[in-house]
Amino acid sequence: MAVNSPLPVAADLKPVNGIELGFAEAGIKKPNRKDVLVMKLADSATVAGVFTKNRFCAAPVQVSQANLKSGKPIRALVVNTGNANAGTGEPGLANAQRTCAEVAKLLGLDAQQVLPFSTGVILEPLPVEKIVAGLPAAVANLKADNWFNAAEAIMTTDTQPKAASNTVTIGGHQVTMTGISKGAGMIRPNMATMLGYVAFDAKVAQPVLDELVRHAADRSFNCITIDGDTSTNDSFILMATGAGALEVNSTDSPHYPALRDAVTGLSLNLAQQIIRDGEGATKFITVAVEEGRDEEECRKIAYSIAHSPLVKTAFFASDPNLGRILAAIGYAGVDDLDTTKLDLYLDDVLVAKAGGRNPAYQEEDGQRVMKKAEILVRVKLGRGNASGTVWTCDLSHDYVSINADYRS
Amino acid sequence: MAVNSPLPVAADLKPVNGIELGFAEAGIKKPNRKDVLVMKLADSATVAGVFTKNRFCAAPVQVSQANLKSGKPIRALVVNTGNANAGTGEPGLANAQRTCAEVAKLLGLDAQQVLPFSTGVILEPLPVEKIVAGLPAAVANLKADNWFNAAEAIMTTDTQPKAASNTVTIGGHQVTMTGISKGAGMIRPNMATMLGYVAFDAKVAQPVLDELVRHAADRSFNCITIDGDTSTNDSFILMATGAGALEVNSTDSPHYPALRDAVTGLSLNLAQQIIRDGEGATKFITVAVEEGRDEEECRKIAYSIAHSPLVKTAFFASDPNLGRILAAIGYAGVDDLDTTKLDLYLDDVLVAKAGGRNPAYQEEDGQRVMKKAEILVRVKLGRGNASGTVWTCDLSHDYVSINADYRS
Repeated sequence: MAVNSPLPVAADLKPVNGIELGFAEAGIKKPNRKDVLVMKLADSATVAGVFTKNRFCAAPVQVSQANLKSGKPIRALVVNTGNANAGTGEPGLANAQRTCAEVAKLLGLDAQQVLPFSTGVILEPLPVEKIVAGLPAAVANLKADNWFNAAEAIMTTDTQPKAASNTVTIGGHQVTMTGISKGAGMIRPNMATMLGYVAFDAKVAQPVLDELVRHAADRSFNCITIDGDTSTNDSFILMATGAGALEVNSTDSPHYPALRDAVTGLSLNLAQQIIRDGEGATKFITVAVEEGRDEEECRKIAYSIAHSPLVKTAFFASDPNLGRILAAIGYAGVDDLDTTKLDLYLDDVLVAKAGGRNPAYQEEDGQRVMKKAEILVRVKLGRGNASGTVWTCDLSHDYVSINADYRS
Repeated sequence: MAVNSPLPVAADLKPVNGIELGFAEAGIKKPNRKDVLVMKLADSATVAGVFTKNRFCAAPVQVSQANLKSGKPIRALVVNTGNANAGTGEPGLANAQRTCAEVAKLLGLDAQQVLPFSTGVILEPLPVEKIVAGLPAAVANLKADNWFNAAEAIMTTDTQPKAASNTVTIGGHQVTMTGISKGAGMIRPNMATMLGYVAFDAKVAQPVLDELVRHAADRSFNCITIDGDTSTNDSFILMATGAGALEVNSTDSPHYPALRDAVTGLSLNLAQQIIRDGEGATKFITVAVEEGRDEEECRKIAYSIAHSPLVKTAFFASDPNLGRILAAIGYAGVDDLDTTKLDLYLDDVLVAKAGGRNPAYQEEDGQRVMKKAEILVRVKLGRGNASGTVWTCDLSHDYVSINADYRS
C-alpha cells in the first residue's frame, strides 16, 4: 500500500550507544501482537519533546509534559498501542501514572523519570493491568539492537514499520542517530506527529535539545497532513544519549548547525514515511508554495490544498481537474491575495498563469503528471520571498474503508 | 441517494407573481440536458445577493457584484451549468459580460440589469457561443409556472432538484415565496451557497432586502458543509418582485420580522436539501454546539466536527467511535477550552461527561443512534450562553467515486 516506501531493513538500523529497547505482546487490543515498548536511557542522556496542541490531549501526553518539567532526568519511555488513553478523565491520568510507576519499579527509577505514551482508540478506558503484566517481558528483552522490533511495536493502522538511521561526522566525531515513527490516520500534527522518537549518541545540553526538537518538528512532522485531523496523542521525542564523543552545550557551538540539520533530515525522512503509508494513500504529494510574503501564508495555502477532499480525490483518480487547486488556494484565508499574480505548476507543467488558464497548457500534459505516484504541486504567489512546503497523500476508497472499519 | 429528501413535486411549487422563468438545452457539457436558465423580473422588483469569499471568485460572480452595485435595477438573471467560468482570467470576464448583453438584447434591457451565474468545472473556457445560441429558446418559454424546470436546469452532480414553496400571511397580506438551490460537492459556503434563488411577491426597499439576504444566508446556506471546499461560484439571491400587496420599507416595520423569518425558514429548507443530497451522503447530521462564550467559537467547533474525515467516515460506518468527535473538538482552535466542563450527547445519549467517558454510557446506546439516517451531535461547552449549529453529511465510498469520476 505505502507509496514508494521501501520496508526498513533491521540490519540497516544502527544501534545508538546509550539507549536500549524492549517490547512485549501484552494483548491490549489483539493477541500475538507487539503492543508495549520500553526504552531505557543511559545516565548521560538528555530528553526533549513536543506534543499535540489538541485541547483533548491524552492523559499520557499530560503526564509526559509534567515529568519533563519536573526537572528529574528522564531515564525511560514506555509506549502502548491499542488504546490512546484520551478522553478518559481522571482515571486515565491515574492509569498513565501507574504505568510509569511500574516501569520505574522494574528499572530502579523514580516514576517521574519515565515518560508514558499511548496510541489507539480514543474514549475507552486503558486496560492498564494488561500493560503492567507485559512490562517485565519488555524489560527482560531490552537491548540496543532492537529498533526494528520497536518500530513494529508502535504500529496501529500502519501497513509497515517506519524507521531510519544515519551516521554523520561532526567536529571529527562520529554521531549515530536512529529514529522510529508511527501514524497513518488522524495525521495533521500540530507541534508533533502521532509518535516519533529519534535518538543519537551525542551529549547535548538540555536548552540546546529543547531548541533542536522544535526546529526539527517544525520542518518535518509539522509539515505533513493526511486527513487534517490533529490527534490527541501526537508526541515527538528527541533523545541525546550522551554516550558518544560529540558534545554540544550551546546553539552557538560550531557543531550545532550540522547536528541540527542531520537530526532534522532524519526527522523529515520519518515524517515522510508516515505520508507514504497514509491510510489508503496511492500518491505522495509535495505542495510547495513560493514567493509569499511570509511563511505563514505559504503554509496556510499549502494546507488548504493538502486538505481539500476534492483535490485529494482528483489525485486519486489521476484526473487533472486542476481548477480544484485554484479553488482551495482561493478559500485558504489569505484575504488580500491577488490572484492575477499567481502561477500554478504541476511538476514542470505551467497550468495557470497570472491567475487564469495558461493558454499553452494542454490537458495531456496535466494528465501525464497526474498519473505519477509522486507529484509536485508548485504555487508561485508573486508577492514576496517566503516559502512553505507541506507533504500529503490522496484520498482514496481505501481511506474510507479503513476508517469505516477501524474498530471492528 | 439523497437522505430523507422527498423529490419536490412541480405542482407544489407556487408561481410567484412578478417573476417568470425559462430554460434551454444548450449542450454546454452534455446534450439533451437543461443547462441554461433565464429569470425575468417585474419592474417593481428589488434584488439582493451575497457571494463567495473565495479569492478565485468566478467571472460571473464578479460581474453580478458589479451590476448589483451599478444602481441600475436588476430585471433578469441568467444561469448556466456545465462550466463555472472560474480561473478563466480576462476572457472569462468578457464571456460573462457577453452573456448579459445577449440576454439584455432579447429582453430590451441594459446589460448591467442582468446578473450572470455559472456552475460546473473550474479552469476551462466558457463555451459562450453555445450559451448565446440557447438564450432565445429560454426566453421564448419564460413563464411563472416553471420553478420545477428551473430547479432541474441548475443541477450538476445533484441527484435531484431542490425547491420549496411557502405562503405566509403578513399584516393581512398573503405573501407567496418559492426558491430553488443546487449543490452537492464543493460545499462549505462562505456568505452563500453554490447557487440559491428565492423569490417572493412583496415589495421590499433595497436596504431592507440587503439586510434580509445577509440574515437569511447566515442562518441557512452559511451553516452547511459537505466537504469543507468553499466554491468559487457561491451565490445566494433574494428577489422581492413587488407584485403582491405587502410592502416593507424599513427593518423597523412591524411586518419585517415575520417576512424575515419566513424567508430564512425557506432558505434553510433549501440549504438542508443540499446536505441531504450531498455527494455520497447516507446520513444527515446536525451538529449543535451550546453553552459557548460566543457564536463564533460554537461554530468553529461545530465545523471542526463537521469537517473531520474521521468523524464523517465513522458516521458512514454507523460506528460509535466517538472519541474522534472529542479529538475534533480539541483541535478546533478554541485555545482556552476547558475540556473538563464539556458534555457530548448523541441524540439523547450522554456519551462524554465533564470531558471524560460517561461511566453510564453503553456502547449499544451509541450504536443505536449511529444506525439512524438523521443524527444530532450535541456539545455543551459549559462556559456561556451562545450556540451555533451546522448541518453536514457523512463521508462515504460514493463521495470518493463521484469526485474521482466527476469530469469523465
